[in-house]
Amino acid sequence: MQTQQARVSAEVSPGGEVRLGVIGLGRMGAIHAENVASVAGLRLVAVSDPYPPALNAAVSRLRVAGHADWEDLVDRPDIDAVLISSPSAFHCDQIIAAAGSGKHVLCEKPIDLDLERIDEALQAVERTGVTLQLGFNKRWDRNFAGLARRIAEGAVGDPWMVRLTSRDPAPPSEAYVRASGGLFADMAIHDFDLARFLTGEEIVEVSAFGAALVNPALAQVPDVDCAVTTLRFASGALGVIENCRQSAVGWDQRAEVHGSLGTVFAENEQVDTVVQADASGVHRARIAGFVADRYGGAYREELRSFVESLLTATPPVATGEDGRASAIVAAAAQRSYDERRPVAISEIVR
Amino acid sequence: MQTQQARVSAEVSPGGEVRLGVIGLGRMGAIHAENVASVAGLRLVAVSDPYPPALNAAVSRLRVAGHADWEDLVDRPDIDAVLISSPSAFHCDQIIAAAGSGKHVLCEKPIDLDLERIDEALQAVERTGVTLQLGFNKRWDRNFAGLARRIAEGAVGDPWMVRLTSRDPAPPSEAYVRASGGLFADMAIHDFDLARFLTGEEIVEVSAFGAALVNPALAQVPDVDCAVTTLRFASGALGVIENCRQSAVGWDQRAEVHGSLGTVFAENEQVDTVVQADASGVHRARIAGFVADRYGGAYREELRSFVESLLTATPPVATGEDGRASAIVAAAAQRSYDERRPVAISEIVR
Amino acid sequence: MQTQQARVSAEVSPGGEVRLGVIGLGRMGAIHAENVASVAGLRLVAVSDPYPPALNAAVSRLRVAGHADWEDLVDRPDIDAVLISSPSAFHCDQIIAAAGSGKHVLCEKPIDLDLERIDEALQAVERTGVTLQLGFNKRWDRNFAGLARRIAEGAVGDPWMVRLTSRDPAPPSEAYVRASGGLFADMAIHDFDLARFLTGEEIVEVSAFGAALVNPALAQVPDVDCAVTTLRFASGALGVIENCRQSAVGWDQRAEVHGSLGTVFAENEQVDTVVQADASGVHRARIAGFVADRYGGAYREELRSFVESLLTATPPVATGEDGRASAIVAAAAQRSYDERRPVAISEIVR
Amino acid sequence: MQTQQARVSAEVSPGGEVRLGVIGLGRMGAIHAENVASVAGLRLVAVSDPYPPALNAAVSRLRVAGHADWEDLVDRPDIDAVLISSPSAFHCDQIIAAAGSGKHVLCEKPIDLDLERIDEALQAVERTGVTLQLGFNKRWDRNFAGLARRIAEGAVGDPWMVRLTSRDPAPPSEAYVRASGGLFADMAIHDFDLARFLTGEEIVEVSAFGAALVNPALAQVPDVDCAVTTLRFASGALGVIENCRQSAVGWDQRAEVHGSLGTVFAENEQVDTVVQADASGVHRARIAGFVADRYGGAYREELRSFVESLLTATPPVATGEDGRASAIVAAAAQRSYDERRPVAISEIVR
Repeated sequence: MQTQQARVSAEVSPGGEVRLGVIGLGRMGAIHAENVASVAGLRLVAVSDPYPPALNAAVSRLRVAGHADWEDLVDRPDIDAVLISSPSAFHCDQIIAAAGSGKHVLCEKPIDLDLERIDEALQAVERTGVTLQLGFNKRWDRNFAGLARRIAEGAVGDPWMVRLTSRDPAPPSEAYVRASGGLFADMAIHDFDLARFLTGEEIVEVSAFGAALVNPALAQVPDVDCAVTTLRFASGALGVIENCRQSAVGWDQRAEVHGSLGTVFAENEQVDTVVQADASGVHRARIAGFVADRYGGAYREELRSFVESLLTATPPVATGEDGRASAIVAAAAQRSYDERRPVAISEIVR
Repeated sequence: MQTQQARVSAEVSPGGEVRLGVIGLGRMGAIHAENVASVAGLRLVAVSDPYPPALNAAVSRLRVAGHADWEDLVDRPDIDAVLISSPSAFHCDQIIAAAGSGKHVLCEKPIDLDLERIDEALQAVERTGVTLQLGFNKRWDRNFAGLARRIAEGAVGDPWMVRLTSRDPAPPSEAYVRASGGLFADMAIHDFDLARFLTGEEIVEVSAFGAALVNPALAQVPDVDCAVTTLRFASGALGVIENCRQSAVGWDQRAEVHGSLGTVFAENEQVDTVVQADASGVHRARIAGFVADRYGGAYREELRSFVESLLTATPPVATGEDGRASAIVAAAAQRSYDERRPVAISEIVR
Repeated sequence: MQTQQARVSAEVSPGGEVRLGVIGLGRMGAIHAENVASVAGLRLVAVSDPYPPALNAAVSRLRVAGHADWEDLVDRPDIDAVLISSPSAFHCDQIIAAAGSGKHVLCEKPIDLDLERIDEALQAVERTGVTLQLGFNKRWDRNFAGLARRIAEGAVGDPWMVRLTSRDPAPPSEAYVRASGGLFADMAIHDFDLARFLTGEEIVEVSAFGAALVNPALAQVPDVDCAVTTLRFASGALGVIENCRQSAVGWDQRAEVHGSLGTVFAENEQVDTVVQADASGVHRARIAGFVADRYGGAYREELRSFVESLLTATPPVATGEDGRASAIVAAAAQRSYDERRPVAISEIVR
Repeated sequence: MQTQQARVSAEVSPGGEVRLGVIGLGRMGAIHAENVASVAGLRLVAVSDPYPPALNAAVSRLRVAGHADWEDLVDRPDIDAVLISSPSAFHCDQIIAAAGSGKHVLCEKPIDLDLERIDEALQAVERTGVTLQLGFNKRWDRNFAGLARRIAEGAVGDPWMVRLTSRDPAPPSEAYVRASGGLFADMAIHDFDLARFLTGEEIVEVSAFGAALVNPALAQVPDVDCAVTTLRFASGALGVIENCRQSAVGWDQRAEVHGSLGTVFAENEQVDTVVQADASGVHRARIAGFVADRYGGAYREELRSFVESLLTATPPVATGEDGRASAIVAAAAQRSYDERRPVAISEIVR
């Protein structure tokens, strides 16, 4: 691994700069493309999107090349890496093409909803020796990263119980939900990855309760919008993930790990530190409700970390294997919900 | 019910004072006996404990009558009510005897571990028309009570998700554990009651994960010391209870209810408001670690509420039915853990 | 001092119990009289108040002797100590009489507004060897006491800056203000004492700004209801006290000490730990607004500490000298305000 | 004013872009120069610094023109505005030259330590009709700006008391202190401006206590490193500013305004939301200790606000008059400290 990475690094940085192409200019792709300017050692060369207004806007604002067809972008000899933020259904094809073209890849989660397709993509990556980083943004959030660091330093001793809360400010459209693969594969997958990241352990069994409470019509999809997923880790530690598609107070993103020596928390970020105390009580503002408020710094750090991984020949903070592992847990959680019983991870990966 | 209560009230308070006997002078019984002095309208008349040193200490300190045999206390014509804080195995016999003697009862949880015995005791209470209050102390904690009030006032809209955390400062002795009936019946039962109290809803299904992590030897009892119990309420709302027999930072007792309009929290109490900020960070003291620190006020309020219930002919805040309902949920949780599957409450009560 | 105290102790506690009389049954006197029951080693024997309804109510509720005339109470041979919570104008006479009668004294602040009268009372106390404790309740508040302990343990290193905030929930009546001796002698005096208690240092210079902003009519008294008083301590450290007669959010009582190694804070107490988070923000209840909410524990601790001082022959936590020192600072602050210039403490005590 | 601003706006933005030159590449100048890239509508054209390494580094990193001599930069016809972050002694000359050359100016505080020089510079600005914005960065801090907005919306009713805390993480060098003009002109001036900004009121009287406690050797400069400055506002409201050159826990920057309807606070920012709870207590990280941590966002917002002011023909958030007013208060505070008496602002500006 070390040798392969060293080779990659030598190739990628003759001038110490990573030349990037961005595939997909939806909400996340546009944020990533904007952020490139603020990351030392990263240069945006080209963008791609099939929707002309999105493409033209990015090209003129960022003064880079534009391609309606992502394959043209991947073929460019003047880029070292691609950032894939297209719809999930394209991820595997794009990873495989990029790897085949010798480009490193930063891919938004999920790799795919289908495990066989995931394995196909990971094999292509392994064959060609490029670096694949998964976009599990929570790993670069200063709060969750700080929590992981303290746990690794021994702050909780042996971890016994993990608790993650992830509640979106407002539910997505029903159309989005229908194409999402379900709450476990679309939303909880971030938390399955975070649980693995915080503890450094694999999940071995899950049990999921869910309900369509925010929008009861989702039961017809079928899907749920509230879920409680219980986890068992390889060490025997327990975990629980709470997901909800709506939270009136804002984007509720917390973590808590309890162990033999103590308990650590990553609380929500506040939009400001203003406190108003009056006859009706003591008041603060809502918590941050937009992706850029809570994870703005994490997205920049994710790009910086990708560049560092390429230039220093070290494995990325989130790998293709991490993407695969969380997809497996998501599939087990879905099966647990469907079959109303605990499901061992070993049932999913024969 | 209303007429019966009115009759009880008339009987109990010719002088507007409730004369009390306390059965059992262990840790909780001693706290209750001390607290009587600070409750207006309540007078301690006699105490009972088979262990002479405990009995003599209480008699001389509180200047009340003492009985080695609890039956002698129950028979006294000059008491209106008994507070039962003996070992659980005696609860049903003592409730039945007190009811038979026309005494009102405040009984520590659990009524019993056996559902048939519980039903026998509740029938004796119903037959004689005395008032039975269960000692689910969390219902009188100012924080949990405040949370319940806000939920009842509509602060969260429709409740979707309930989360309770209950972690003891230090594990009990293995001897205690062996006699306890297991973590679900001994510890989580408080939280099953709290979940019902906060939401005003019945639990219809539970699924429990547990492990012996604090003290792996408990697996031989068999029992667990860490557990995550997922709940489904009659309305479809979900819940999760986290229990652990040890928490380094102190007695961790929190609740959180998330719903359509918002999320409410009852956080831990602090022992003081002192903050120390220095080069190593910002520091506060541990959270309260003893029962009297966290629930001292709740225990006094529990007595006050019992007196109010008797004098005003209103049902107690926690009834025998509440004790029965939580015992049923505890039995379902234990079965879920034993059989590694979700268990419907309807399986327990045929 | 030590020998004298030892003698006192021997006298006071043949049976290890302090027999107390309470003079003055206004708001504070009534609270103290109620609290006696909960203090081990203290027994209420008699109360005194010239207003018959107040006296009769206390006598019947507490089942103790009652005297319309405080001199009759002081003369009783069956009391060891008196608690003086009468109007301030009576304090010196009562201290002198009690001391003359060999009774120990717990006296509410201030001893008097006149320094010569204060000296007269303190001389009577010294002559007779009784113990005099001053009722500076903040010294027994768990938060301020905790702060003092941390400072004494070195948490801030050398103290450089002290900041005290004291804002009442609502202004007193104009009649009260007229008789009060002014904001500095009536309200800020508690904070002058707290500043001395926290730092263990004497104040050597003060400079006061004030204004009648809550009720501009007070300017005619003349008095102020908002004040900022700057302090210089003997070590050269600086301090600032903010006082206001009204605070919409409740009784705002905070302290902060900044020094070479860090900063320590005593924040306000909360009435409960409930947090409500919704679309309009994150909300908590008002802070405690009544004396019993914030200082209920401190008043009980003040009595307990008085008993301990008598029984163990140790000096009280707040002495007559402490009362005198704060009265001097208050006089200097008043002069600074009147003459619009900084005033050295040495100007007041020739 | 409105017409003049409109003319300025028309001139400055034929292409809707402000072309900027930065004078002075010390710590703050370098931060500002880097930030230009992230501000829409602002383009960095040239930088100037007499120290070749600083100049060369900026030129090569930012790919802009460089001038050793600031007058060459001011003379460039292709810039619309200059940002002055040179040593304070140069500010007036540079403002006057820039104004004479028709360039708008964003100048770091202070304009100068000498009031006559300040007036000279402001007259040049007025004569030529350019816009002058002062770099009082706290006005663009999200927390202080949020506080000002709430006060303007009526959250505190009539403001009665203002309290500002400003403590640096570590003291500057003695050389810096000697050239600084003293703590009041160098450090407290930010808080004098913040007090005016939060209340929208002028300060009419000040009284300052100070001491050299962090570094007693400063008494020889002479200067102080701890100060408490009491303020009286035109409305009669009171204020107090606490300054200290050292704070072990980090950069302590807080504000609090108390009034008839309530109290509002801007608390310190935290570096992350991680909480560690263990047997020794509950711990958080130090507060942000570097300018970029606490005011990084404010500096970007300050540039954005400058561009908006120029393009929309509205007065800047902090004007030359604001710079002059705070310099006057600083002079009064210094005189108060020197002469040990309260000083009216009217004594300074005859």
